[in-house]
Amino acid sequence: QGTRDHTPAQAALRDRLLSAVVSCFKRHGGAAIDTPVMELRETLVGKYGEGAKLIYELQDQGGELLALRYDLTVPFARYLAMNKITNMKRYHVAKVYRRDNPATTRGRYREFYQCDFDIAGQFDPMIPDAECLKIVHEILSDLQLGDFVIKVNDRRILNGVFAVCGVPDSKFIPACSTVDKLDKVPWEEVRSEMVGEKGLSPEAADRIGDYVQLHGGLELIERLLQDAQLSQNKLAKEGLGDMKLLFEYLTLFGITGKISFDLSLARGLDYYTGVIFEAVLLQQESERLEEPVSVGSVAGGGRYDGLVGMFDPKGRKVPCVGVSIGIERIFSILEQRLEASGEKLRTTETQVLVATPQKHLLAARLKLISELWDAGIKAEMLYKKDPKLLKQLHYCEDTGIPLAAIVGEQELADGVVKLRDVATREEVRM
Amino acid sequence: QGTRDHTPAQAALRDRLLSAVVSCFKRHGGAAIDTPVMELRETLVGKYGEGAKLIYELQDQGGELLALRYDLTVPFARYLAMNKITNMKRYHVAKVYRRDNPATTRGRYREFYQCDFDIAGQFDPMIPDAECLKIVHEILSDLQLGDFVIKVNDRRILNGVFAVCGVPDSKFIPACSTVDKLDKVPWEEVRSEMVGEKGLSPEAADRIGDYVQLHGGLELIERLLQDAQLSQNKLAKEGLGDMKLLFEYLTLFGITGKISFDLSLARGLDYYTGVIFEAVLLQQESERLEEPVSVGSVAGGGRYDGLVGMFDPKGRKVPCVGVSIGIERIFSILEQRLEASGEKLRTTETQVLVATPQKHLLAARLKLISELWDAGIKAEMLYKKDPKLLKQLHYCEDTGIPLAAIVGEQELADGVVKLRDVATREEVRM
Repeated sequence: QGTRDHTPAQAALRDRLLSAVVSCFKRHGGAAIDTPVMELRETLVGKYGEGAKLIYELQDQGGELLALRYDLTVPFARYLAMNKITNMKRYHVAKVYRRDNPATTRGRYREFYQCDFDIAGQFDPMIPDAECLKIVHEILSDLQLGDFVIKVNDRRILNGVFAVCGVPDSKFIPACSTVDKLDKVPWEEVRSEMVGEKGLSPEAADRIGDYVQLHGGLELIERLLQDAQLSQNKLAKEGLGDMKLLFEYLTLFGITGKISFDLSLARGLDYYTGVIFEAVLLQQESERLEEPVSVGSVAGGGRYDGLVGMFDPKGRKVPCVGVSIGIERIFSILEQRLEASGEKLRTTETQVLVATPQKHLLAARLKLISELWDAGIKAEMLYKKDPKLLKQLHYCEDTGIPLAAIVGEQELADGVVKLRDVATREEVRM
Repeated sequence: QGTRDHTPAQAALRDRLLSAVVSCFKRHGGAAIDTPVMELRETLVGKYGEGAKLIYELQDQGGELLALRYDLTVPFARYLAMNKITNMKRYHVAKVYRRDNPATTRGRYREFYQCDFDIAGQFDPMIPDAECLKIVHEILSDLQLGDFVIKVNDRRILNGVFAVCGVPDSKFIPACSTVDKLDKVPWEEVRSEMVGEKGLSPEAADRIGDYVQLHGGLELIERLLQDAQLSQNKLAKEGLGDMKLLFEYLTLFGITGKISFDLSLARGLDYYTGVIFEAVLLQQESERLEEPVSVGSVAGGGRYDGLVGMFDPKGRKVPCVGVSIGIERIFSILEQRLEASGEKLRTTETQVLVATPQKHLLAARLKLISELWDAGIKAEMLYKKDPKLLKQLHYCEDTGIPLAAIVGEQELADGVVKLRDVATREEVRM
């Protein structure tokens, strides 16, 4: 349940998609690492907030207690701490596992790929953070998924908002995960969850509402830097200062057109400590009613300066910022688009079919195909002793093989091969 | 335990290795599929003989009972049956899981890659089987692993041998798994296991010994076809006839020099029904004493005509033959060789570092690197506002970046960039 096989056509499409993502990661100097699909259970404990109940555990068959990885970020942090690495730019493309309610039509599975790029190290503020946003911008542009917006916020700003609105420290994380729902449900519902389930005062909730419904650009940052309350809060001031710097860098990258500073963005995971962001696709012009409506998140990430320290015996911190591309949703979109276009993706790369037009020529086929393989040419033949020529040519048409190398009695006698262009039917002897 | 992280250098080496294997699979017209890392437990039951106890099971957290895949062959057979596919040439490169005693120095892990190529369908005898052997030959030759031999046998011949030696049907599979140990322990030990643990008569064991210690080529096949007992056994006769045909095809492929018909080859898995084979590396000339000694299996496979039928509700069979490349052992060898050579593998593909020689030029760096990224050029910069030029050039040397694009005050004023070849220190303004 919630998993799927990939047919050759799906595997080919996925390969194309992952190649585009990986080539962007390489363009930014990322090095690949790999980690096991299973981690010690204790490694995953206390990192995912409400997600923890979705972790797949392995049966205790003696030995270590294991679980399947839930994301690629925690294994990365564990890897850095274990190897005492303080400085690294890495990417990792692999499957992760969540016992979630699958919604396969929207690309939500229990086994799914993540494509992560992270920058670890003590650097000058906002330079790696800006690069992560540039990466998201490049990938979504390259893939031509239509219009998108990248929402940006900062956990410090959110915490500052909660503080100045009178929320006690202990309720920051629950308040955060409630605010995070604002992209799916209206403010009224979020407000009533805050007051009901999370036990905030109605006054605090209303004050929060005034802030978290704001979104904009540099002018909003400037305005909040002047805000009578927020400007008095140390965390919020830091976050806003960095947000301003981030926008400066994004201006130099020429991508602020797709960036929205959005105070409702909270992100569900516990480990974020600074900048957070999320990219959403907007509905196409044709389907648009009044305002652009988001059709779902396709990338997200943020800064997590405390996570590596949780795995270091001495608690030594390694600041990190990273991005995860939501490849499954993108895959669903591309799959639907491919289906709509009627285009048929080739599932093999075979260049030539070795064929014979008469009987008793299997030996000739085997000798020729062997020569082709040894020369690095992608070649196939039918696994029949005496296949009909028509059947062999149909196979080419069905699978998109462009050439047939035909060797018959005459060709054998003349020491040549007849090369046929399957589409045009042109033939040359060589 | 028994798993490992891959560092960037290891990930780069593995990527190189897997690319070589996959390009061979594509050369032979393989299409990729992918299946989930977990299967229903019931799918894996009864397929692996003594290996069954090594299956990793997931905890029962409600819902289906799951286990991690043990190989890629059973998931492939399940895929074919589920989708009613009767004809397919597919490859699959993915990790599999076995709760084995790890021997990591010899490349035996609990999580490891398999690279499988399989041909499913009703075809003329031995044509796909011969191609599988050709694939093993190509891959081992391409990777330049030194001398190797591919042992070939047939389950039907082995069963015929057991039958004519007086072993009851019910003991074929245990006898088979005992014979399989002949590559690691001498005949005397295998004999005593047969008589002791497996309960064969000493006479039967001795007669088996006369057969399973034979190995050779076409002449041995011919001799056994004339063997007074074996030639009377239907299964053995079929197997020997097919073996002869196989050698004919392998002669046309020009690879019989590396093929040995070896009656001791049995292979541990239950599901084989016909041809079986295993490639072993031989010790290098330099280390060789008298006879070539095998240093371990690096590929194996065979025909399994009954497996797909086990997953079909009506038991419809799809004949299959396939090969699995033992990538971990090959990886260990390449890793040791790389270490010995002192060669340093680059872990990134960055072409140019964007650098500045004076302070207050971060904006210039960000603008230039953004242009390079947008033009598809792999570029990096240091994440510092004002890094020293020397530090930037050292970074190039450390990570193998060949070029530095330097933009200083003069270059900015002149509207140019200074491109420096890191190795030769040559510079051009452009």
